[in-house]
Amino acid sequence: MLLEKIDQANDIQMLPREEWRPLAAEIRQFLIEKISMTGGHLASNLGVVELTMAMHLFFHFPEDKIVWDVGHQAYTHKLLTGRRAGFDELRKYGGMSGFPKRKESSCDCFDTGHSSTSISAGLGLVKARDLQGGSEAVVSVIGDGALTGGMAYEALNNASQLKSNFIIVLNDNQMSIAPNVGGMSQYLNGLRTAGAYTGFKEGLQNTLELLPGGERVVRQLKKTKSGLKQLIIPGMLFEDMGITYLGPVDGHDIDQLIKTFGEARRLKQAVLIHVKTVKGRGYEPAERHPARFHGAEPFQIENGVPKSKRTKANYTDVFSTVMRKMGDRDEKLVAITAAMPDGTGLKRFRNIFPERFFDVGIAEEHAVTFAAGLAAGGMKPVVAVYSSFLQRAYDQVLHDVCIQNLHVIFAIDRAGLVGSDGETHQGIFDLSYLSSIPNLTLMAPKNKWELSDMLKFALNYMGPVAIRYPRGEAYDGLQEFRSPIIYGKGEALYEEGGIALLAVGSMVKTAVAVRRTLKEIGYGCSLINMRFVKPLDEELLLELAGSHRLLVTMEENVRSGGFGQQVQDLLELRGVKTEILNISIPNEYVEHGNVELLYREVGIDAETVVKRIVTRYVSL
Amino acid sequence: MLLEKIDQANDIQMLPREEWRPLAAEIRQFLIEKISMTGGHLASNLGVVELTMAMHLFFHFPEDKIVWDVGHQAYTHKLLTGRRAGFDELRKYGGMSGFPKRKESSCDCFDTGHSSTSISAGLGLVKARDLQGGSEAVVSVIGDGALTGGMAYEALNNASQLKSNFIIVLNDNQMSIAPNVGGMSQYLNGLRTAGAYTGFKEGLQNTLELLPGGERVVRQLKKTKSGLKQLIIPGMLFEDMGITYLGPVDGHDIDQLIKTFGEARRLKQAVLIHVKTVKGRGYEPAERHPARFHGAEPFQIENGVPKSKRTKANYTDVFSTVMRKMGDRDEKLVAITAAMPDGTGLKRFRNIFPERFFDVGIAEEHAVTFAAGLAAGGMKPVVAVYSSFLQRAYDQVLHDVCIQNLHVIFAIDRAGLVGSDGETHQGIFDLSYLSSIPNLTLMAPKNKWELSDMLKFALNYMGPVAIRYPRGEAYDGLQEFRSPIIYGKGEALYEEGGIALLAVGSMVKTAVAVRRTLKEIGYGCSLINMRFVKPLDEELLLELAGSHRLLVTMEENVRSGGFGQQVQDLLELRGVKTEILNISIPNEYVEHGNVELLYREVGIDAETVVKRIVTRYVSL
Repeated sequence: MLLEKIDQANDIQMLPREEWRPLAAEIRQFLIEKISMTGGHLASNLGVVELTMAMHLFFHFPEDKIVWDVGHQAYTHKLLTGRRAGFDELRKYGGMSGFPKRKESSCDCFDTGHSSTSISAGLGLVKARDLQGGSEAVVSVIGDGALTGGMAYEALNNASQLKSNFIIVLNDNQMSIAPNVGGMSQYLNGLRTAGAYTGFKEGLQNTLELLPGGERVVRQLKKTKSGLKQLIIPGMLFEDMGITYLGPVDGHDIDQLIKTFGEARRLKQAVLIHVKTVKGRGYEPAERHPARFHGAEPFQIENGVPKSKRTKANYTDVFSTVMRKMGDRDEKLVAITAAMPDGTGLKRFRNIFPERFFDVGIAEEHAVTFAAGLAAGGMKPVVAVYSSFLQRAYDQVLHDVCIQNLHVIFAIDRAGLVGSDGETHQGIFDLSYLSSIPNLTLMAPKNKWELSDMLKFALNYMGPVAIRYPRGEAYDGLQEFRSPIIYGKGEALYEEGGIALLAVGSMVKTAVAVRRTLKEIGYGCSLINMRFVKPLDEELLLELAGSHRLLVTMEENVRSGGFGQQVQDLLELRGVKTEILNISIPNEYVEHGNVELLYREVGIDAETVVKRIVTRYVSL
Repeated sequence: MLLEKIDQANDIQMLPREEWRPLAAEIRQFLIEKISMTGGHLASNLGVVELTMAMHLFFHFPEDKIVWDVGHQAYTHKLLTGRRAGFDELRKYGGMSGFPKRKESSCDCFDTGHSSTSISAGLGLVKARDLQGGSEAVVSVIGDGALTGGMAYEALNNASQLKSNFIIVLNDNQMSIAPNVGGMSQYLNGLRTAGAYTGFKEGLQNTLELLPGGERVVRQLKKTKSGLKQLIIPGMLFEDMGITYLGPVDGHDIDQLIKTFGEARRLKQAVLIHVKTVKGRGYEPAERHPARFHGAEPFQIENGVPKSKRTKANYTDVFSTVMRKMGDRDEKLVAITAAMPDGTGLKRFRNIFPERFFDVGIAEEHAVTFAAGLAAGGMKPVVAVYSSFLQRAYDQVLHDVCIQNLHVIFAIDRAGLVGSDGETHQGIFDLSYLSSIPNLTLMAPKNKWELSDMLKFALNYMGPVAIRYPRGEAYDGLQEFRSPIIYGKGEALYEEGGIALLAVGSMVKTAVAVRRTLKEIGYGCSLINMRFVKPLDEELLLELAGSHRLLVTMEENVRSGGFGQQVQDLLELRGVKTEILNISIPNEYVEHGNVELLYREVGIDAETVVKRIVTRYVSL
């Protein structure tokens, strides 16, 4: 086992050249085996094995700095920096993160998670180095998918002014999670086919020498503009922006990569190295279905089939089905995703209504304002997006959609704890950042049927509506309760006095369990499915405050700015004095780990909630 | 007066050609006169007089749609669409907005205010048109400054796929508010000098014909890459992205503009027309100092000097001075602005410490993550930004700075009501959207000395800190109170029992007046300068709750998610029952108008606050 010789950073540099390829094979084997057991990001990591090795052969850690864009592709980096043992507890609570973490290793120089941040962060590290007289290398590794994010462009626009070395590795696998879209992607496709990069000195010159006489040049020019550009100067779009372009380079050829790093490192400016990689490389199921092996559940190595079969639909499936049905009925309905047709469940809508489906690339800001434009033009756009990624478009929701009170529907998936992706992906802030936006209606369904009802309600309501629902299995209890959705009205499921549980969305399920236990131990307990976090059902709340000794607000969101605070504030505003217990996530980031376990850790599982209620109730 | 013939949209089309130039002159005269009285955006509007006229001569309203990026340059558009009379009450409460507003005219198709949204919104309108079988023109007018914003790039990346007409007018005046920065700006500079645009058909071909034999082409190629590109195909960067480029066109030549619109309109794809304009055109003081005449106060037409002289320093001045001093003392201090070196007061820092100053262009997202990179690299970055623009970087604050607990200081100017710019610019959400971000410390100074103290405190505190302060004159009262800043601790200015005023930042000044009146009418009144909104001074709050009959929270922020709710929640969490009166801005957008007037409208002026306190207190 060559991997056993790699116990810490830079150990790889002791390996003779002929062991590089066997090591790459071992790393792939290792990743496939481990991830088949723990789950994790497989396809992206298999794609960058040689690229990461080449960086670790050429650079020196922790002095040199790599910023991994998004960060889910840093597994080989972790392996090569002394974290082999960590893979047994990958993405488990208390175990190794699936993303770079500064607190995990000095070789992780910047934490990532969301897309398109690496060039900005890398540029910051470069400027910090230069101002402090340092000489370390700074490398940002960004995928072609992440390059559709506007931040990356903002950073390139700045990096072009640089008078010192900064290496940007463009890891081009032609995919975000799904295949890429847009002009930049087409442009890169053109470059990919431009033939292998033969080195910096010869590059430009050789290519020019290929040109015959002027007449012929002109004739070619007339035929095709883009053909010419590629022929003369590959990467001219980047050169136009002031970024030196080297490439394309075969991302699975360690020698060529090292040679190119050497050339790039000598330049006193920002250099983009265009590296072509294959997502899922070396594991056939992942090469064939890279999206499926983006963030994979544990699977059987022989065939790539997931070990545990999902039996119940999740909320994404429900959303997917409803979108298809609504698309049939209302031809004004359009759907927008930021590079997540699979994850958000819009794939089906896309297949049936391709002209009404828009994948805008990793570009949440544009997605939301584009939706605003569609709404202003008379369509009914649904933006399907994960809770933590909608954070990117906070201003667009507030400024472009809600000031104009436009009829845009936000279908917010992964709202609440998402589990193994950890801090950067937990959707635990949306009730807070959306609650203070005027004109926005904010809802959360109790179960799968209610998600369907709420989507239909939102489609007919004139104004911005956000519906948040969690990752994972959709709750299919409480089927007997399906009263029509009425604007701003909650649904009283059980009314018994004593304690009133006011639950939002996913917490209704928890509240059912809480109520059962409370009844068993002798407490009467009402249960309200709030449905609307904004506006609050004032009438119902005032009535409940009058008829119950304790109101318990329950939400899968941080406490600060969340539902509980809004309820408390409303009652205070109306001069109602009531006992309120706020069940929510403490105002802290929540690490990776199994969701059920995280519920207990943050104290919103049924058992903890029962204890807190009883403690409070007996003290009244 | 030709202007008197223009009473509604399309009236301009009745004017004979020879009256175009006189009309342009009249419009300039009109704008200068009106804005000299009301204040408003002068330089940008003077720059687009002919461009706007050309659009109104070529297009038809309200059928055709113009989306004005940022929107402060739409004055001529307003003039030409029947809003001449509105200029007397421009930017006044109840009067005409300084920005496009759908509710103001059917010729305003999309509200704007923040930068870089127009291509996204325009693309939405295009898709809505195509899906509904419409044929109207859609035009997005975007400045070269706004083109540094990542959203614009995200939208271009999408627009490139378009198979129907969409016109993007690049209004290139080489300025944001300040001169532009970055690779894109340099690139456009190159294009500007490429000679006048001679029309679509000839354009490419003629340019190619200029090329002599092949040998010479190759020789030229070797000499200069960029020279060649401009020579052969101007605008190739846009062409590379799949956007047809026409230009550059003289933006003050109506004939040429109309001709180019005609060419652009025929294409079934996204077309970018590169228009060169001069900011402030036709009014010498504005041409010479476009930044000063960006958003101007009323001025004397003869010389451009403001009518009223500012006698007191504003918070921006204080920030500016302190930054210079701190820059002297701490060489790790670096400063970042998103295209606002003047507005934020960083110009002085830039002049003295150019190597530690970074203007990243209109790119708030990048600005914040770039700062995170600088902090991770050991520097102490201060991001100076307006409250409403920091909304753009909400995710970057939460995800890139605060998860890693990096030492980045946010100097948040224009926090609170800003006045005449209106809804899009009011800084009334920051306490809400920042309060729920873990690890972030959130402060607000009571007066100018305290801003200085807080900045110094923040420089020495290890972790992310945001300091918010309002637009306009800095409060210079309470000079006698200047106790050292202690983490998480408020400052009791007066302690008298009865009523406790808990005031945040700008509201301390108001609270002084409130207390004076309350004392006059016989109420004892404590006054607390909270200093920290996060973390709250729990000890102090519990003590006050015990010793006062009524706590009054006072903040210049919307109620939802703000300071008052946090105080209420903390007391509830600690089981303390107290009477609390929450003084804050109602959860609504606030229109444009004089700030003092707006205070009264939203109910946070001293008089209204006194009334509310007395009403509440006597009912206890």
